[in-house]
Amino acid sequence: MPQSSLEQLSVDTIRTLSMDAVQKATCGHPGMPMGMADAAYVLWTKFLRHDPKDPKWFDRDRFVLSAGHGSMLLYSLLFLTGYNLSLDELKQFRQWGSKTPGHPEYGLTEGVETTTGPLGQGFATGVGMALAEAHLAEHFNQPDHKVVDHYTYGIVSDGDLMEGISHEAASLAGHLKLGKLIYLYDNNHISIDGNTQLSFTEDVIARFKAYGWHTQSIDGHDRKAVEEAINEAQSVYDKPSIIACRTHIGYGSPNKHDSAAAHGSALGEDEVRLTKKNLGWDPDKHFYVPEEVKKHYEEAIQRGREWNSEWKQSLAVYRDVYKEEAAEFDHVLSGKLPEGWDKDLPVFPADAKGSATRKASGKVLNVLRDRIPNLIGGSADLTPSNNTYMEGTAEVDAGKYDGRYVHYGVREHAMSAALNGMTLHGGVIAYGGTFMIFSDYARPSLRIAALCEIPTIFVYTHDSIGLGEDGPTHQPIEHLMALRAMPHLHVVRPADANETTFAWKHALQRKNGPTALILTRQNLPVYEQTANGAAADLEKGAYILQDAPNGDPKVILLSTGSEVSIAMEAWQKLSDEGIPARVVSMPCWKLFEAQDKSYRDKVLPPAVKARISIEAGATLGWYKWIGENGVAIGLDHFGASAPYKEIYEGFGITAEHVVEAAHQLTEVVSK
Amino acid sequence: MPQSSLEQLSVDTIRTLSMDAVQKATCGHPGMPMGMADAAYVLWTKFLRHDPKDPKWFDRDRFVLSAGHGSMLLYSLLFLTGYNLSLDELKQFRQWGSKTPGHPEYGLTEGVETTTGPLGQGFATGVGMALAEAHLAEHFNQPDHKVVDHYTYGIVSDGDLMEGISHEAASLAGHLKLGKLIYLYDNNHISIDGNTQLSFTEDVIARFKAYGWHTQSIDGHDRKAVEEAINEAQSVYDKPSIIACRTHIGYGSPNKHDSAAAHGSALGEDEVRLTKKNLGWDPDKHFYVPEEVKKHYEEAIQRGREWNSEWKQSLAVYRDVYKEEAAEFDHVLSGKLPEGWDKDLPVFPADAKGSATRKASGKVLNVLRDRIPNLIGGSADLTPSNNTYMEGTAEVDAGKYDGRYVHYGVREHAMSAALNGMTLHGGVIAYGGTFMIFSDYARPSLRIAALCEIPTIFVYTHDSIGLGEDGPTHQPIEHLMALRAMPHLHVVRPADANETTFAWKHALQRKNGPTALILTRQNLPVYEQTANGAAADLEKGAYILQDAPNGDPKVILLSTGSEVSIAMEAWQKLSDEGIPARVVSMPCWKLFEAQDKSYRDKVLPPAVKARISIEAGATLGWYKWIGENGVAIGLDHFGASAPYKEIYEGFGITAEHVVEAAHQLTEVVSK
Repeated sequence: MPQSSLEQLSVDTIRTLSMDAVQKATCGHPGMPMGMADAAYVLWTKFLRHDPKDPKWFDRDRFVLSAGHGSMLLYSLLFLTGYNLSLDELKQFRQWGSKTPGHPEYGLTEGVETTTGPLGQGFATGVGMALAEAHLAEHFNQPDHKVVDHYTYGIVSDGDLMEGISHEAASLAGHLKLGKLIYLYDNNHISIDGNTQLSFTEDVIARFKAYGWHTQSIDGHDRKAVEEAINEAQSVYDKPSIIACRTHIGYGSPNKHDSAAAHGSALGEDEVRLTKKNLGWDPDKHFYVPEEVKKHYEEAIQRGREWNSEWKQSLAVYRDVYKEEAAEFDHVLSGKLPEGWDKDLPVFPADAKGSATRKASGKVLNVLRDRIPNLIGGSADLTPSNNTYMEGTAEVDAGKYDGRYVHYGVREHAMSAALNGMTLHGGVIAYGGTFMIFSDYARPSLRIAALCEIPTIFVYTHDSIGLGEDGPTHQPIEHLMALRAMPHLHVVRPADANETTFAWKHALQRKNGPTALILTRQNLPVYEQTANGAAADLEKGAYILQDAPNGDPKVILLSTGSEVSIAMEAWQKLSDEGIPARVVSMPCWKLFEAQDKSYRDKVLPPAVKARISIEAGATLGWYKWIGENGVAIGLDHFGASAPYKEIYEGFGITAEHVVEAAHQLTEVVSK
Repeated sequence: MPQSSLEQLSVDTIRTLSMDAVQKATCGHPGMPMGMADAAYVLWTKFLRHDPKDPKWFDRDRFVLSAGHGSMLLYSLLFLTGYNLSLDELKQFRQWGSKTPGHPEYGLTEGVETTTGPLGQGFATGVGMALAEAHLAEHFNQPDHKVVDHYTYGIVSDGDLMEGISHEAASLAGHLKLGKLIYLYDNNHISIDGNTQLSFTEDVIARFKAYGWHTQSIDGHDRKAVEEAINEAQSVYDKPSIIACRTHIGYGSPNKHDSAAAHGSALGEDEVRLTKKNLGWDPDKHFYVPEEVKKHYEEAIQRGREWNSEWKQSLAVYRDVYKEEAAEFDHVLSGKLPEGWDKDLPVFPADAKGSATRKASGKVLNVLRDRIPNLIGGSADLTPSNNTYMEGTAEVDAGKYDGRYVHYGVREHAMSAALNGMTLHGGVIAYGGTFMIFSDYARPSLRIAALCEIPTIFVYTHDSIGLGEDGPTHQPIEHLMALRAMPHLHVVRPADANETTFAWKHALQRKNGPTALILTRQNLPVYEQTANGAAADLEKGAYILQDAPNGDPKVILLSTGSEVSIAMEAWQKLSDEGIPARVVSMPCWKLFEAQDKSYRDKVLPPAVKARISIEAGATLGWYKWIGENGVAIGLDHFGASAPYKEIYEGFGITAEHVVEAAHQLTEVVSK
């Protein structure tokens, strides 16, 4: 078979597999895989350095399908090039328990580099991957020994480029001159509502030029043009590249080509037949893969094995020549924390005046700086407020990737996705900070971290009305609950400096999900480590910080973060009155929920029904812990602009109010 | 005093007032007001058509301070031009109970057109205001009778332009060619982390050109240049305008000029003195307003009165000449719903097969189309899925603003802010749809609606695992709780088609806050309207949909939306077993919380402790209603990609599971 026919057959195999899988599921998105089959074929057979039999090979090119709805494109390619994904799995597209869900899911399907579907996420995640690559390359590579040297490719859609996160991420990538980031833009002129002329008429190419990207526009069905464009993109070292590929959605379908109808629905049995005929295929064959096509795609296995093995050989030489660097590199690749990483972490002495947990966090980071050399920090333009900077570390900038601190700009969303991308890439441990209120700007990326079950670390300071005068627009109220509601995300709100140390320990040791550290702007007392419990118990989610003298409380005060100090003050007042009380610090609900019943009952004895929660935020979720007799002291309304102590006073988040509630409760309960 | 000196004195008065107020508060943002004083002076004295004594005059120019941290700029101008804001209020900047909070708050301070502070929000809100103006202008204006004819101005910052929402909104405004939108960009090269070179090096002007904007770059301290630029911007009818004003943050401060130190902290007593000296002011005077300056600014009162009165005269003539149009215009201005707007709203007969609530919503909208002529719909590129299109209505597009349906593109965040802007502008009732999962992309704008207490309507379809095969990336889990946690936002999740009708009634009648309508993709039964309660009771937040035969239930099943059908199925099974059960539909928790105790106790009798909640989402908040003995059937993990019935089955959100829980509970409780 002549090469050109084999190529065509190979491309059309993606089309027919995608059509068939969507048709069998009776739902899905056939149009995009059909439209981008040519470009994806070129990328995957002529450029992508990967090893299907070792999908986690560290120096592989990363491929991100930002337009995740076109999942059948990726599944087809993974199956065809020899990944651990069978044709039977393709037949189970979108079915319960399959490896081929509606949108690609990281961790479920080998070769899927990140979970995509929510538009713009893949785009921004890829920027983080490219940044991680640039950082590790500059840090580890030596003349003639490039142990990190790969591209990050992606396919992005109109929808990706309409989403705000694409702007943030593109502006950041352009600023950082991430030359090894190459995106193919599926410029098909069609979105769900119809032609993109309906709403999307910006000059995309000019926009990306303005961001400092290298730009090209080509016919996305002209495979030669695609090849040349990727070659040219690779030749530009100091600019990320976008290649606008003019394509036709549903390519090959006589009636749905160039139509929104091809986007999100099965073509229909008849149209599938017509399309196959149109492509010169047997309409009676389903999930048909010509022998020679499979063989052709599977050349990837041999190529991958060779690349991988060359890299391993090169690494072996590197280990000989650059012993120290290689030891560090091997360690970084292991994904483990360095031996003794947590010794010297600060222990803060009890101190009534205390310090803000954001400041304690800064102190922890300044110790971690030397203990964890691949820890990379950053902030969305709130560095001095977030206390996220590790003193003395170099800053990452264009062409200076070996730094360990990233100025993300006022781009919370792109920062969060980039943190995910760095975490997914591996080799670095990434955290980034912003004000907690702005977690709202980044929730879709937090959710991707949670879906991927990756340990991205989000640092959120200025966590309540305690931030004071900036007022309601900047004071989180609903955010703690809104974050707690997200599966897999550990929301950790330490009560003092020592809990902050253990909060960082938890976040860094966690392997299977993201952590949000919730820190104060204002000073908090540092507590004595009691016999009953100490900050180390943060790992249990909740613990007895201060107990009734006889260990038999009449009332339990449950609290987190800054309000623990109010609980402690109330405890003192109640003690003075002879009312035995217990203070429970609950820095992380999910961790507490994961404890066995005996521990939970020890901390919150079922018999003690008089319970008061104190937290400067929405009370919504507290009833789980305080029960129907409990009193939730919190804020189910917005904050105010004033010095913070006045706000606490004005809204009744005070020890006096707690004591009052305790009186009422102990009366009620003792009746 | 020569005009030029008076001008300078007037500009410097903004500077000194801002410095003094921030210094008195010992915190705040002096740098921006000092830097933008010149440009703002020109805009407010030479262009802005407003009436300080009638701040709600309908045809006023709208002014949005997107860089809300520079609130003292706005407060200074409001005070100086004669709004109801005293010098004493300026002295109370950032204090409890003042009208001068850290960031401008709509509804609190006259003349503040929207709440700003979270960056990018004002930018996108202004786009909505300009769209509302364009729509009403095209709809109502007649040759020689322009009853709607004003500009929307804004001041935007580096931070605004870094945020993704600015991209979405700018792309949309460029697409729509909103020529009467004019933004001054405070191009001061400084953000919190330092020089914008650290992270923000895109070519902003080229970027906005790519969006189809008219662009200019000027010296922002050259007032003549500002004047000319605004004149030129006004002369361009078919493009929104951005004028990049190169300014110096902290202008006038000898030591903090051009420094990040001037951004977010008081200058310090000494530097305030030095700055005043530098500006030729008496350093011993605080909050000093030269007589002639006050007089000069207060010319705005006379000008405003005249403009307003000319407009009223013109409107009077319009009323004579265009009686029908004027009647409609007056009605629209009243903000009231038309007489009989809710007659003919669909009443759906009981039907086991039923329909999706998104479809019922579409039917309601098709009736409202004729009843509420100023209802303007839209979707973020999910029109056919959201069922948001009112059949037969014209679509809004560039130069065709009289339509009633907006294709927002894949821009959930900008759409939401634009909906706020339209709502704030007045004259239209705006709603927009997307998938519920994508509410996460727009939370900051939802929060602005909640903070402003304005009745923006958000339509969220595909509200759970019930959307099926698109899988976990598209299935809301935590979203219901995350939205419920937000103050003022009414989250309404109707259980069937009839509740959907009443959900719309509620949203449209609400005046003091936004509503999110949470709708299914999948079909739901339509229920009989029972003797105990009917869909009309949605207004009470929760009601008894199906009671135990004797009205004395042993177990209460609480549910919302699609899971009510599971509760009903369980009710039947329990009834068959002779276990008296009650089904409570709880479409809106906040409305239920607002009922008096007797109603709440009637629906949820305190004596009945056996309670089960059934909702396909995070269980976090349910314990408030089901108490400590209750069982929460829900999803505290992500969804799955499969046909939706299999997902419900697989995750145990089934009537069988409810019955099982009821057995256990009634045993426990009866012990």
